[in-house]
Amino acid sequence: MKPRLAQIHRFSGEISRQAEDSLAIEEPLEIRVRGKSVAVTMRTPGHDHELAAGFLLTEGIINRREDIIEIAHCQQGEAADRENILNVFLAPSVQFDVEKLTRHVFASSSCGLCGKASIEAVQQCFAPVESHLELPASVVKSLPDQLRERQHAFSKTGGLHAAGLFNSTGELFVVHEDVGRHNAVDKVIGARFLSREPMSEHVLMVSGRASFEIMQKALAARIPIVAAVSAPSSLAVEFAQESGQTLIGFLRGETFNVYSHPERIRPSQSG
Amino acid sequence: MKPRLAQIHRFSGEISRQAEDSLAIEEPLEIRVRGKSVAVTMRTPGHDHELAAGFLLTEGIINRREDIIEIAHCQQGEAADRENILNVFLAPSVQFDVEKLTRHVFASSSCGLCGKASIEAVQQCFAPVESHLELPASVVKSLPDQLRERQHAFSKTGGLHAAGLFNSTGELFVVHEDVGRHNAVDKVIGARFLSREPMSEHVLMVSGRASFEIMQKALAARIPIVAAVSAPSSLAVEFAQESGQTLIGFLRGETFNVYSHPERIRPSQSG
Repeated sequence: MKPRLAQIHRFSGEISRQAEDSLAIEEPLEIRVRGKSVAVTMRTPGHDHELAAGFLLTEGIINRREDIIEIAHCQQGEAADRENILNVFLAPSVQFDVEKLTRHVFASSSCGLCGKASIEAVQQCFAPVESHLELPASVVKSLPDQLRERQHAFSKTGGLHAAGLFNSTGELFVVHEDVGRHNAVDKVIGARFLSREPMSEHVLMVSGRASFEIMQKALAARIPIVAAVSAPSSLAVEFAQESGQTLIGFLRGETFNVYSHPERIRPSQSG
Repeated sequence: MKPRLAQIHRFSGEISRQAEDSLAIEEPLEIRVRGKSVAVTMRTPGHDHELAAGFLLTEGIINRREDIIEIAHCQQGEAADRENILNVFLAPSVQFDVEKLTRHVFASSSCGLCGKASIEAVQQCFAPVESHLELPASVVKSLPDQLRERQHAFSKTGGLHAAGLFNSTGELFVVHEDVGRHNAVDKVIGARFLSREPMSEHVLMVSGRASFEIMQKALAARIPIVAAVSAPSSLAVEFAQESGQTLIGFLRGETFNVYSHPERIRPSQSG
């Protein structure tokens, strides 16, 4: 599937200008076996049949090609639902026991299953942020070095994601590292939450990419600005736009991109 | 938590030598609320209370500090179980509905919950690989460039993981990209599986890190060698050792590390 184009603000040195950027597409896929949902995964659309077959094989549900009779996209519902729901028809001989799955991932799909529906489902739970926080571009650029200095375990192993929470002057409050990107974010947010400290005038920075789930976690914690060293996904950008969150990506050295709500970032000059 | 030390074989240029490497620790954590398992996540041990609190907040289960009365590690079972199971005690006023979770991740913990038990659980389903495949170091070094050349979407978006399947002469058969690392692997394995082509004399290469779940997927597909651009986790290495898999990490330029079953890699010279 082709990447999606986004209108962004690119900051470089002291200059900000409008530009176009290509986003990796992220959409949910639900895999159903004998009418039961066995997995919902956020994936890049394309080769969904292969994804479903590979998932069922590697989870131990099937082991021979003959175990699959047919894989077909859902025939009911809205167009987006049909593209994002796959039915796998197994041979009658396959003993399918949902309890045999090492991991079961269910999601409510009552309101449809597509990026838009996923955003709406989260927003029923969490209202958009309305923070008037403003951040100078010079502060944004100072974040990666500070995060890296505190990534003690990464420097030894090269195998950990990091997340950090900064205030509007660029002061770093808490950093956590984890083999799982979501876990690093949960640890940072959980630490502030347990010590009853607010996050509504703060910036969350992650060492990797920005996905839908990272934006959801930031919104739940009322964090208005999320910055990532790497790329955001299409759904992360859509989510941020609708949730009032400022999303910064490719934050490296003297440059970064702003994908949503750029009004919170103050450039020194505008081009 | 401190990294774990591993004895590895480091290949550089035409030389292989034994060395020591630090691994990021990966172990499962089960979060229980009112006695019910709400999540099992592969995490780096440490700050587990923060992780649990952050997870419950960002999943919308709680929203005030007062909602949590206590978080405590499990008091029963083996030592490893106690460290890897957390009970969260919520205030009686909190309406907790397991159906409200956007994602439910369950895992059977009947055989305990620790890295060792996770490996055993997978091995009950999939036998170790017994391939006699051998790969010259020169072929290993050729893999990253080939994978990168086929990462079309990554070159546009910078936001996708890639996985590829090679044979023992370094020929690339199939590549897939996805916002999710596991999805890229499932697509590659599923493609070969659907076309009834074997994977038992092949090498799986991933653009990121090697975790427990990547090794599980490779084992299910009977792939004897896994190579990663970045670091492996502690549990990926333990899993590979016990499953007869060769695990290669930090495969970049002229150098790479072999973390398990180095007998499948033929150096030009040994140091």
